[in-house]
Amino acid sequence: MTTLLHIDASARKTRSISRGLSRLFVETWLKSRPRDRVIRRDLAEDPPPHVTEAWIAACFTPQDQRDEQARAALAWSDRAIAELAAANLIVIGTPMYNYGMPSALKAWFDQVIRIGSTFSFDLARGDWPIEPILSGKRLVVLSSRGEFGFAPGGVRQHMNQLDPHLVTCARYLGVGDDAVHIISIEYQEFGGERHSRSLAAAQHAASELAAKLTSSIAPLAEVS
Amino acid sequence: MTTLLHIDASARKTRSISRGLSRLFVETWLKSRPRDRVIRRDLAEDPPPHVTEAWIAACFTPQDQRDEQARAALAWSDRAIAELAAANLIVIGTPMYNYGMPSALKAWFDQVIRIGSTFSFDLARGDWPIEPILSGKRLVVLSSRGEFGFAPGGVRQHMNQLDPHLVTCARYLGVGDDAVHIISIEYQEFGGERHSRSLAAAQHAASELAAKLTSSIAPLAEVS
Repeated sequence: MTTLLHIDASARKTRSISRGLSRLFVETWLKSRPRDRVIRRDLAEDPPPHVTEAWIAACFTPQDQRDEQARAALAWSDRAIAELAAANLIVIGTPMYNYGMPSALKAWFDQVIRIGSTFSFDLARGDWPIEPILSGKRLVVLSSRGEFGFAPGGVRQHMNQLDPHLVTCARYLGVGDDAVHIISIEYQEFGGERHSRSLAAAQHAASELAAKLTSSIAPLAEVS
Repeated sequence: MTTLLHIDASARKTRSISRGLSRLFVETWLKSRPRDRVIRRDLAEDPPPHVTEAWIAACFTPQDQRDEQARAALAWSDRAIAELAAANLIVIGTPMYNYGMPSALKAWFDQVIRIGSTFSFDLARGDWPIEPILSGKRLVVLSSRGEFGFAPGGVRQHMNQLDPHLVTCARYLGVGDDAVHIISIEYQEFGGERHSRSLAAAQHAASELAAKLTSSIAPLAEVS
């Protein structure tokens, strides 16, 4: 059985284009693999708190020495990391807000990328002391942008702080270097024909990707 | 009188290196310009909420038609935008978390970059419909990173999702294209000689920049 972690980051519960695209991907997946498990993490429904000083202190306290306050500081993180660890495939539906991740999605990353849980740090490794603890996962990002031209070679590529950031952080989720897929809808703020074409192309690509992955990954070993 | 908006984004109230550097900059500034005004915005003290669906709906509701709920959804944003509008110089002390902004700083940007308040949107402008409303400001970023090599040409430049994102968003704060200064401390997680040198160099650069700006900008017109 494959476990999908289905995250949505849009503040909009209604009329969200990124939510529509992530739902399409997951529904297409389940059509061919109805017995796979989906863990749902809606960041608008249950907003991840920003990391605090108490959170940092608790991370650096050995687990068996954490008092109730320390455990409370890590509660959101513990739950999110357990979901991540259980997943083979991470599906993130997210809009681009101000050229990057919505703050709620960044807060999710800040909560799950945690020393001793998702990465280890060892200066004996020299100038690259950080290693992810999790491995073998795949990441699918389904995204919507108000403007356009964010793809490589596009007029706004240099303003795209979303895709490169997700790729950089993916490694710390246990995602392999060539296991990140990003499908994007553009032109949302412009509407019209260009937006319709972009939406249709992304929907097609998302369905194709789900079909390709369900057949090529073929029932993964259960994790956790 | 010049007004400084002094923002700190580190979750750490104690032992924060970015807070130390932003404090040094502001103190150096005030030594030569003691009558300048400093507005303080501590994002650990008063964490900016993530944008919500109610927030988005309220933004698109004309001001005189907003009910109490809509006004409440925008309260944090209103206050943060008023502070931004009043400032000539924005000073941001921030660590790099997971190669980008801490979620609290991204939430600040998401709260202040707001249609009708800090930018206008008009499709009559063609493919570049967004224009900032504010102007004439300058941004100084004082930052700390655990690893190293994030500067142009460095081994981790491609992982630096902090500086380019701040530069991209600065325009929407009313900051001119050549009015962004970024000073960074590296090697925090490594400690040792390399970190000490990086820290000393950044402290020197921050003091120099404060001295240069206080003499070259010389008493700015009051804003707002």
